[in-house]
Amino acid sequence: MLHRPKRLFVGRPLRSDRLGETLLPKRLALPVFCSDPLSSVAYATEQIVLVLGLGGLGLLYLTPWLGVAVVVLLLIVVASYRQTCHAYPNGGGAYTVSRDNLGVGASLVAASALLVDYVLTVAVSVVAGVAAITSALPALVPHAVALSLALVALLTVVNLRGVKESGRAFAVPTYGFVAIVLVLLAVAGLRLVMGQTLTAESASWGLVPDHRTGGLLTVFLALRAFASGCTALTGVEAVSNGVPSFEEPKARNAATTLTIMGALAITMFAGITALAVATHVHMAEEPSHLTGLPPGQEQRTALSQIGLAVFGNGPTFYLLQAFTAAILVLAANTAYNGFPVLASLLARHGHLPRQLARRGDRLVFSNGIVLLAAVAAVLIVAFDADVTRLIQLYIIGVFVSFTLSQAGMVRHWNRQLRATSGAPARRGMRRSQAINATGVAATTVVLVLVLVTKFTHGAWIVVIAMPVLYLLMRRIRRHYDTADAEAAPRPGGVTLPSRIHAVVPVVKINEPTLRTLAFARAIHPDDLSAVTVRVDPAETDRLFTEWMRRDIPVPLTVIDSPFREITQPLLDHVRSIRRRSPRDVVCVFIPEYVVGHWWEALLHNQTALRLKARLLFQPGVMVTSVPWQLASSHAAMDAENRAGERAPVGVG
Amino acid sequence: MLHRPKRLFVGRPLRSDRLGETLLPKRLALPVFCSDPLSSVAYATEQIVLVLGLGGLGLLYLTPWLGVAVVVLLLIVVASYRQTCHAYPNGGGAYTVSRDNLGVGASLVAASALLVDYVLTVAVSVVAGVAAITSALPALVPHAVALSLALVALLTVVNLRGVKESGRAFAVPTYGFVAIVLVLLAVAGLRLVMGQTLTAESASWGLVPDHRTGGLLTVFLALRAFASGCTALTGVEAVSNGVPSFEEPKARNAATTLTIMGALAITMFAGITALAVATHVHMAEEPSHLTGLPPGQEQRTALSQIGLAVFGNGPTFYLLQAFTAAILVLAANTAYNGFPVLASLLARHGHLPRQLARRGDRLVFSNGIVLLAAVAAVLIVAFDADVTRLIQLYIIGVFVSFTLSQAGMVRHWNRQLRATSGAPARRGMRRSQAINATGVAATTVVLVLVLVTKFTHGAWIVVIAMPVLYLLMRRIRRHYDTADAEAAPRPGGVTLPSRIHAVVPVVKINEPTLRTLAFARAIHPDDLSAVTVRVDPAETDRLFTEWMRRDIPVPLTVIDSPFREITQPLLDHVRSIRRRSPRDVVCVFIPEYVVGHWWEALLHNQTALRLKARLLFQPGVMVTSVPWQLASSHAAMDAENRAGERAPVGVG
Repeated sequence: MLHRPKRLFVGRPLRSDRLGETLLPKRLALPVFCSDPLSSVAYATEQIVLVLGLGGLGLLYLTPWLGVAVVVLLLIVVASYRQTCHAYPNGGGAYTVSRDNLGVGASLVAASALLVDYVLTVAVSVVAGVAAITSALPALVPHAVALSLALVALLTVVNLRGVKESGRAFAVPTYGFVAIVLVLLAVAGLRLVMGQTLTAESASWGLVPDHRTGGLLTVFLALRAFASGCTALTGVEAVSNGVPSFEEPKARNAATTLTIMGALAITMFAGITALAVATHVHMAEEPSHLTGLPPGQEQRTALSQIGLAVFGNGPTFYLLQAFTAAILVLAANTAYNGFPVLASLLARHGHLPRQLARRGDRLVFSNGIVLLAAVAAVLIVAFDADVTRLIQLYIIGVFVSFTLSQAGMVRHWNRQLRATSGAPARRGMRRSQAINATGVAATTVVLVLVLVTKFTHGAWIVVIAMPVLYLLMRRIRRHYDTADAEAAPRPGGVTLPSRIHAVVPVVKINEPTLRTLAFARAIHPDDLSAVTVRVDPAETDRLFTEWMRRDIPVPLTVIDSPFREITQPLLDHVRSIRRRSPRDVVCVFIPEYVVGHWWEALLHNQTALRLKARLLFQPGVMVTSVPWQLASSHAAMDAENRAGERAPVGVG
Repeated sequence: MLHRPKRLFVGRPLRSDRLGETLLPKRLALPVFCSDPLSSVAYATEQIVLVLGLGGLGLLYLTPWLGVAVVVLLLIVVASYRQTCHAYPNGGGAYTVSRDNLGVGASLVAASALLVDYVLTVAVSVVAGVAAITSALPALVPHAVALSLALVALLTVVNLRGVKESGRAFAVPTYGFVAIVLVLLAVAGLRLVMGQTLTAESASWGLVPDHRTGGLLTVFLALRAFASGCTALTGVEAVSNGVPSFEEPKARNAATTLTIMGALAITMFAGITALAVATHVHMAEEPSHLTGLPPGQEQRTALSQIGLAVFGNGPTFYLLQAFTAAILVLAANTAYNGFPVLASLLARHGHLPRQLARRGDRLVFSNGIVLLAAVAAVLIVAFDADVTRLIQLYIIGVFVSFTLSQAGMVRHWNRQLRATSGAPARRGMRRSQAINATGVAATTVVLVLVLVTKFTHGAWIVVIAMPVLYLLMRRIRRHYDTADAEAAPRPGGVTLPSRIHAVVPVVKINEPTLRTLAFARAIHPDDLSAVTVRVDPAETDRLFTEWMRRDIPVPLTVIDSPFREITQPLLDHVRSIRRRSPRDVVCVFIPEYVVGHWWEALLHNQTALRLKARLLFQPGVMVTSVPWQLASSHAAMDAENRAGERAPVGVG
């Protein structure tokens, strides 16, 4: 009967299984794992230009130098993560690596950073994707928030349905984006060589000079611009996470893919940055800080301004924007894979609620997906779909996890060195350790820079959120540990309760009540009583009379309640039974209406549920729900049974 | 043990009881029941001036005529409601009167109108109160929404705590407001007689003329201004609702109070309107429609402008504003009494969920209070705490209930006439009927005017909301009726189930599981089995081995689940038992963790609750929760037991 639905599942197995079966060649692994880092070149240059612009046009001469600094950092981090690929062929995310090498505390810090980061990846990438769209179609500017939320909703539904990334689906936007950016660079190079000048539309707009410029402030702005440019590095660690999905030799292929990604990212980032300088793109945090901006016009993204200058307002420009939007949305999708998996890992380790470790009806971690989407949506609304404001929160988490992951690797090599004796192997390890140590040093410096330069610009939110998450995860684990310890089987074994007292609360005589009484009698309790609370004396009298008339073979106890409470007198009644015979068990039978629509549930059982909630706190009491299915519930039950085909399937 | 808490209750009995004990003399009944209609003079004049101003300054000459029309209408309605006081000495709200005389359908229309109206009374009065405050302290203008929400929160807490209106608490603001307005009129009269000119600050500001003025449009604007001025009538029916609270002779005292209220309202309204004309107050819907408004300044309320012109910017002016704000907040409080009581009445009649008929721990209808506050808060935020925009929604409900209530009275007199023979009595009844009929005619005309002139200005929201509420209440009643019919005791009686099969789902062996097994054995079922779902074969093997090692005297059934579902296989197992023996009952025992903090509840029982939710839909199944109290729950239980002192006390 249930084979058919199960077949449906067989057709849609877990991603990890499928990836395990169809291992990815490098050319497909690149789009699957690298859309996030490749896509970030779409906004990294812009952030540099924008922050420098705060100091006036004069500071823009620093752009190339900061670009070089970012490229060097990217080289270091890529080299460092190549070591991780080799050391963790089963996948070495920051959480795993730091848990292995630095302990639970550090791993939870990394986990907090990663969780925050995944949320921001969704928010930033989607918003940046929308910015690419609105740069092509400025009429959509006022609808940026709505568009962003629609994209988040789309990603959520797609991921809840469990449509998995096939390498091919990722290949088109990723390679398309890379190709069109390379074409952009080539065409621009050619035109420049031929002596043409390329001018961004904003080149003629002046920047309202910021009066705060000066010696130390210039340094500070330059550092902040560098920190903003480091967004180019986000997502680098995805490859090290995905090593198991590569074709053999896994580690080497992964490392090579990482190198290719690095080369592409550096080429594109350097090229775009160079073009930004060549075309004199001006950007301002607030469009009102641009003098000469035509009234009513919003500034376009830097990349789209460059595209417009190079390609002109033709189909190629729109293609560039379309591919930019597509790869950015794909980058957001990466977080939809990462967050739920990490959350499920944390849940399995007892740091998050267990239901995050449960796969939903499409075998994906639905709860994690919904949680991610909800928080990202809140951020998008709160920050008004503004890339620049969101990016302030972004890179702290990235660099915390970079630093911890690489610090973990340094420790890892120490251990390996202790366990290894062969000189050539030791030499390789020392080399890897040196690379990772360089990585730690570099990312630590950047982390401090980011913290200092961005703290007041919104980064403080992350500085608060991460410790809160950390403490929460600690607390949850402590709770589970305590609960498990309390629930551990005791040496003496459980004694059977001596007697069972059945209690049936009665409000009026109807079929649910009568059936509940019948069920209560069927367990043959040592003692059975129906109880009613006298709220309205006339009503209670009527009940009593009918009880006698019907000759119901169960004694009816009437409890007085001058102040019209119902729960408390019943609770007292149950307690008094327990007090008389503490070794007995009281079983309270409660009729419960089962309805077909959620709103109907608001119309029933409120007193029953309150009574039950309070009875559960009494030791030695069990509560039996005797359901009474209303006709409207039958349709719902049938639907429910059909839904069983795609029903919640859990491990937790 | 629980006498002490009950004593606490005795100290805080129901309002209706207390009001019954300490009957109100007229001088205290006036502030208790009339703060709403008296307070509305604070904004009624302003609305007339404002709407007329849309047609330019030229139309303001109509102000006195519209004032007279409102006064006449007020006279008619007061006279009409005096009849209701006599006819319904037990309280005759629109719902009661129309249910008695026009049937359930009409009464539900009245109820929808009243519910909408109570919500708007809160929103409009609070926002108008805040406008009185910001008129005195213009620096608070940007915080109008926050201030309004704070006042709603304050009213909600006060009413949830069950602090009841003592006549005295109401007397100060109400009489204070009346007194200061009368002083205002006297001083102004004196100064005018002495030949001084009084000029409102806005008198010199021009109104940007609306280009839409013209013959028919002038008529339309005048009618709309009249409709807006009719807000002066809101709350008149409160007295007829409160007749039982008056000292004997109740009906006559109530009618007299109504007359006094009418006289005061008319005096104040007429006086304020006359002063508005004399001081040349100009108002605009949007301050930007006022030319000459000093930059950055918001326009003050009309009453405060008059106050400023008459008293100057001294303590008397601030006293006027303080009393205005106070009586307006008091008016909002009236709705906090009316809404929950009406909702509870509707709930008792099966038209709203039963929990609205349940008194919370302070013996007030907490659910109704919270619902009212929530909806009012949403309106305040949605309409940006703007009196003018909210008032567009306001008076439709008022006039619908006026019309229905008075139409009901006309019917009422018809019946009385049929049952009465004495000529003098009949003459009195005919007179009353004539008065009520005049009332119906007048309010019907106004209702149509309001609908026509305000429909596009926001009234359509109410025109949609009322039928939706009406249908909802119909639907809820139908649901309760169906449920009752289905649950009616059947003639054959209930047959005892032949056998009981106990099923205990097991995940791992711990104390909660062992205790659940012990409890299940204690009911001596005809057949007892523990069931586990094989999700992780290794884990299931471990469980099975330990089961054998511990020699647990219950057979353990293992169900396969290759796709890691838990709920569905268990459900199938239970169903298969029922299929084999349809006359038996299956009792599923589920261990449930009881925790101390709400957030801990998210960490447990998720699978258990899902299983239970689905089992409830299966006929012939009962579900027994065997609670396992974690240590953290003990503190909560103690708190819970202490809370029993003020615990939910229900009638529903």
